[in-house]
Amino acid sequence: MKHRPTELDAATSPAKRAAGGAGDEWRTALTCIEPNKILVRGYPLDEIMGRLTFGEAIYLLLVGEVPSPGMGRLMEALLVSFIDHGATPPSTLAARNTATTGAPLRACVAAGVLGFGRYHGGDIESCMQFLDSGLALVREGVGLRDAAERIVQKYLNSHEVPPGFGHRFHTRDPRAARLFQMALELEVEADHIQMIRAVDLFLHSHPDEHGRTPPVNIDGAIAAVCGDLGIPPTIADALFIISRVPGIAAHADEERQRQQPMRQIDPKDHRYDGPSARRLPERRK
Amino acid sequence: MKHRPTELDAATSPAKRAAGGAGDEWRTALTCIEPNKILVRGYPLDEIMGRLTFGEAIYLLLVGEVPSPGMGRLMEALLVSFIDHGATPPSTLAARNTATTGAPLRACVAAGVLGFGRYHGGDIESCMQFLDSGLALVREGVGLRDAAERIVQKYLNSHEVPPGFGHRFHTRDPRAARLFQMALELEVEADHIQMIRAVDLFLHSHPDEHGRTPPVNIDGAIAAVCGDLGIPPTIADALFIISRVPGIAAHADEERQRQQPMRQIDPKDHRYDGPSARRLPERRK
Amino acid sequence: MKHRPTELDAATSPAKRAAGGAGDEWRTALTCIEPNKILVRGYPLDEIMGRLTFGEAIYLLLVGEVPSPGMGRLMEALLVSFIDHGATPPSTLAARNTATTGAPLRACVAAGVLGFGRYHGGDIESCMQFLDSGLALVREGVGLRDAAERIVQKYLNSHEVPPGFGHRFHTRDPRAARLFQMALELEVEADHIQMIRAVDLFLHSHPDEHGRTPPVNIDGAIAAVCGDLGIPPTIADALFIISRVPGIAAHADEERQRQQPMRQIDPKDHRYDGPSARRLPERRK
Amino acid sequence: MKHRPTELDAATSPAKRAAGGAGDEWRTALTCIEPNKILVRGYPLDEIMGRLTFGEAIYLLLVGEVPSPGMGRLMEALLVSFIDHGATPPSTLAARNTATTGAPLRACVAAGVLGFGRYHGGDIESCMQFLDSGLALVREGVGLRDAAERIVQKYLNSHEVPPGFGHRFHTRDPRAARLFQMALELEVEADHIQMIRAVDLFLHSHPDEHGRTPPVNIDGAIAAVCGDLGIPPTIADALFIISRVPGIAAHADEERQRQQPMRQIDPKDHRYDGPSARRLPERRK
Repeated sequence: MKHRPTELDAATSPAKRAAGGAGDEWRTALTCIEPNKILVRGYPLDEIMGRLTFGEAIYLLLVGEVPSPGMGRLMEALLVSFIDHGATPPSTLAARNTATTGAPLRACVAAGVLGFGRYHGGDIESCMQFLDSGLALVREGVGLRDAAERIVQKYLNSHEVPPGFGHRFHTRDPRAARLFQMALELEVEADHIQMIRAVDLFLHSHPDEHGRTPPVNIDGAIAAVCGDLGIPPTIADALFIISRVPGIAAHADEERQRQQPMRQIDPKDHRYDGPSARRLPERRK
Repeated sequence: MKHRPTELDAATSPAKRAAGGAGDEWRTALTCIEPNKILVRGYPLDEIMGRLTFGEAIYLLLVGEVPSPGMGRLMEALLVSFIDHGATPPSTLAARNTATTGAPLRACVAAGVLGFGRYHGGDIESCMQFLDSGLALVREGVGLRDAAERIVQKYLNSHEVPPGFGHRFHTRDPRAARLFQMALELEVEADHIQMIRAVDLFLHSHPDEHGRTPPVNIDGAIAAVCGDLGIPPTIADALFIISRVPGIAAHADEERQRQQPMRQIDPKDHRYDGPSARRLPERRK
Repeated sequence: MKHRPTELDAATSPAKRAAGGAGDEWRTALTCIEPNKILVRGYPLDEIMGRLTFGEAIYLLLVGEVPSPGMGRLMEALLVSFIDHGATPPSTLAARNTATTGAPLRACVAAGVLGFGRYHGGDIESCMQFLDSGLALVREGVGLRDAAERIVQKYLNSHEVPPGFGHRFHTRDPRAARLFQMALELEVEADHIQMIRAVDLFLHSHPDEHGRTPPVNIDGAIAAVCGDLGIPPTIADALFIISRVPGIAAHADEERQRQQPMRQIDPKDHRYDGPSARRLPERRK
Repeated sequence: MKHRPTELDAATSPAKRAAGGAGDEWRTALTCIEPNKILVRGYPLDEIMGRLTFGEAIYLLLVGEVPSPGMGRLMEALLVSFIDHGATPPSTLAARNTATTGAPLRACVAAGVLGFGRYHGGDIESCMQFLDSGLALVREGVGLRDAAERIVQKYLNSHEVPPGFGHRFHTRDPRAARLFQMALELEVEADHIQMIRAVDLFLHSHPDEHGRTPPVNIDGAIAAVCGDLGIPPTIADALFIISRVPGIAAHADEERQRQQPMRQIDPKDHRYDGPSARRLPERRK
C-alpha cells in the first residue's frame, strides 16, 4: 500500500543510519564545486562573469542553456518589468514593517517574498493553463478567434476576469505592452502570445456594462512570453520572485535610511518625492 | 527623556488615529505609480525595459542613477559571481529542506535567504570597515604597503584571518580574481581594490606556519569593488541577496523535480551529474 | 465584471488617498489596546495571567471563548503532542541550517515554520474533509461501519493510505493513542473520533499484502479531536504551528550552543545523548 | 592561522565525503525518536501529555527539567503576558499584509516572527545585562539602592531610558505589574526582580522635566523573571517568540476570514469590535 509521506518518513532508524552508502546518493545538475573550480551548468563561473549578463546567467542556471541573444534581451526586459511597483503592494509593506523593527535586510526580503501568492505574482500558472486550453483547441482545428472566444466564455458568464487580465489601477499596463512589442521585434512571438492577443481582441469587442475592458496585465504578459520561450510555470514563478527582490530590498533599505524605527506605516499617507519623469541618455536608446 | 522605541510605540490611541492628516505623511523616492505610468527613479519602466539590463536596472533602483557602461558591466559580473555555490551551503540546504516538504517556491526562497548572516555573505560590512581603516591611514600620509601591514597585524597576532580572506576550500577563488581583472580593464579600480591587493601581497609574504596564505575570497572582492563603485555596505548586502536568489530558487526547483517529497537530505551523499566543463560559444567571448 | 484581485488593487490613486475617512475602517475582534488596558477577547490580560494556562489562553484567542476544563485539558495535550519530533524533520533541519549560519533565533524559527506544508502538519484539512465525508453518509442514514468502509474504498483501490493514517516509522503512534484515550476520559469524544476509530477498525480487518495496517497518526488524531472540539481547519493548522515552534526553537538554540558555525549538517550522522527514559515525579501522575 | 568560517567551509571535497564515519557524528539531547517511542528530555511524550501543560512542556524542552509547580505557574503567566498586543505592532502588520495576498498561515506566521528584533521583544538580552551589571556591584558590597542609582546614571545623563523601561503608550504596563505580583506570591522573586524594583523606585524619585517616569515594561519584567528563574537570554528570546506566535496566527486568520484579499491595510483606520470588557467565570479565580 503506497503510504502518504509524513514527517515520520524523514526519520530514520539507527540501523538504517548506520548502513548509509551509495544507495543514498542524490544528484544535482546545477553547479559543480571543486577546489578552485566552479561550473554553472558546465560553464566556468569566471568565464561567465563579464560575458553573460546577470539576466542571461539567470536563464542559464534555471533553464540549463545559454539563451540566444534575442531570448536574452527578452529575459532582461521581463526581469526588469516586475522589479518594483511602489510602496503599496502588501509584500512591500510586509518588508517595510519588518524593516521598521530593526530586522536585518535579509529578514525584510524574506518577509516580502512570502507575500507572493495566489493573487500577487502567482497567477502565472493559471494564466498559462488558460492559454494552453485555448491552444489545445487550436491544435484540434478550431480557429484562433473562436478558440479565444470559447475559453473566455465561462469567465464572461460568471462576470469574472480571465487570468492575466486586470484593470483596477492601470487601464493599459505599460509593462505588458512593451513586453509584447519586444517579443514581436525579437521574433520570439509565437502561439501563446498570439492566443493572449486574440483573447485581448475578443474582450475589446465585448466590453462590460460600464463600457470597460480589462487590459492584459503584466502577469498575463509574462505568462505568454514564458510560454513562447519554453519556460515552464515553476521557473516562471521563480522569475517573478527574482525580479521583485531588488524592489523589496530597496524599499526595506529606504525605510531604514529615512524613517524612525517602530513607526506605524500607513500606506495611504505616503507620497513620492523622487526624481520627476526623465528620459534615458541618448546613447541608451 | 528620550525613550527606547518598543512595540508600544507603534500603537496609537484612538484620538491620535482620528486626527491623521498631512503631519503623518511619509515619502519614497524609489518608484512613482500612477494610472498607466510607472517611474523607477524617474525613468518610465517601459522605457527602461529593453534598454537597461536587469543588472543595470538593479543598480539604478538601489543607487538612484543609471550606471556608466563600465560600472554596469562590473555590476553584471558582481551579480553573476555569487549566483550559486552548489548544494552544500546551509542556506541552500534550508531551501531544499523546505522544498521537500512540498512548500511553494517562495517559501523555499525565503527560508534560504534567512541563512545569509554573519558568516555567509555578511562579511561585507566588516571587510569594508577593514579596508577603510587602511585607507584612513593612507589619507594621513602612511604608504599603502605600510598601511596594509598595520591593519593586518592584529589579525596575524591572534592567528586569525582578516575579513575578505578565507581558504577552506578554494586556495584561489576564481571569482575574486576575475572581478579584479575586470575592475582593472574597465578602469574602475581605485583605492579600495588597491588596498585589498596590498593586503593580499603582504599576506603572501607572510605565510603561516604551514606555508599557506589565505586568498582573497568573493566577499572581499565584492566589498572592495563596492567600495570603489561608491556602493554603501547596506546596498552591498542587498546585492549578495539579489545575486544568490536565483541559485536558491534553482535548487528548490530541482529538489522538487528530481526527488521524492519528505526525504532526508544528507549533503555528504550528493554528486554532480550536470554537464561536463564546456566553453561559451565563440560569439560570447 | 468582477475582477481578479492583483497587486494593482492594493495601489490607490492620490485622490483616493486624500479622501480617506470612515469608509476605510476595518475591524478586529481579538485584542483591545488602550492606555494601561489590554483585553484579549474581552478579558483583561492581567486577569488571564495566572488564571488561564498558556494552552487555555491560546484557545481563547483563536476560538473566542474560555474553554471548559475538559476541553482545556485536551487542548494542552494536543499542543504537547506535536511539540517536537527530533532532529530529522525537514523543518527542523531548515532551522538548524539557518542557525549554523549565525542567524538570530527568530530567523531560524521562521525558516522552520515555512516547512509545514502539504506533507508535514498540513494533512489536517484533507483529513477533516475525509472524516466529514463519512459523517455526511452517517447523517443520510448509513451505518458508521459501512460509512467507514465506503470512504476508505477509493484509497484501498489505488493502494494509497487515507489522510490521517501513516506507518513509515511508528507502527503505533503513541501520541495518537494517548489523545484518543484522553478524549474518551474527558467525555469530549464525539462523531469525528468515532468515525476515525471506525476507519481504523476497518483497516485492521483489511491488512495489505504484507499483513500491515497503517496506524492512525498524530495528524489524524488532531484532526478528529479538533473536529469534535468544533475547531475549524484553519485554526487546527495554527495549532500545529504553535505546538512545534518550541521544538524548532530548542533545536536552533542547541545547534548554536553545541556546534561550530557553518558546519555541514548530515541528519544521518546524529545520535541522541540526552537523558535516558525516565518517569515523571509521583505528584505529576 | 584560525580562519573565518565562510560558505566555503560547508563545502566538502569528494574525498572527504567518501570517508564519512563516526568522526562526523553530532549529538542532540532534546528528543529521542525510536519506533513507537518518543522521549522529550527523557520523558515519554505520551506520559507528558495530560500531565504537563503546554507551558510546562515548553519549559522542560527548552531548559531540560520539569519545572516546580510555582515555576510552572509563573511560566504560564509569562507566556500568556505576551500572547498578543493588537493589530498595530509591525510584526502583526507584516503577518496581515502577507495574509491579504492569500499566502498560507505558516507564511504569515513566518513573516510576523521576522519582525521580532532589536526594538521589539529583543530587549531581553540588554535588559538582563543591565540588571546583571547592578547585581555585580551588589556582590562587590554596594547596597541595592546605590547599585540601582549607579547603573541608571549613564542613561539619565544622555536622556535615555534604561532597557526594560518604556512609556509611549502605557504609563503602567498591567502585564509587568501582574508578573511581579505573581513572582512574589509564588516565592520566585529573587535578586533580578529586586534589582529592577530598585531601579523602578529610583526612577520614580527622579522624574524627567515633564514630571514623567518611565514604567517597567513587559520586556523588563520578563527579563527579570527569567533571570530569577535561571533562564538564559537565548531561551528568554525563544519564550517571546513562542508567546507571540498564537497572536500572529490569530490576526492572520482573522484577516483572511473578515477582509477582502489584496486590500490596503492602514493601521490607523482600525477599530476594535470584539467583546466588551468581561470577567472570568468565578471558578477561574
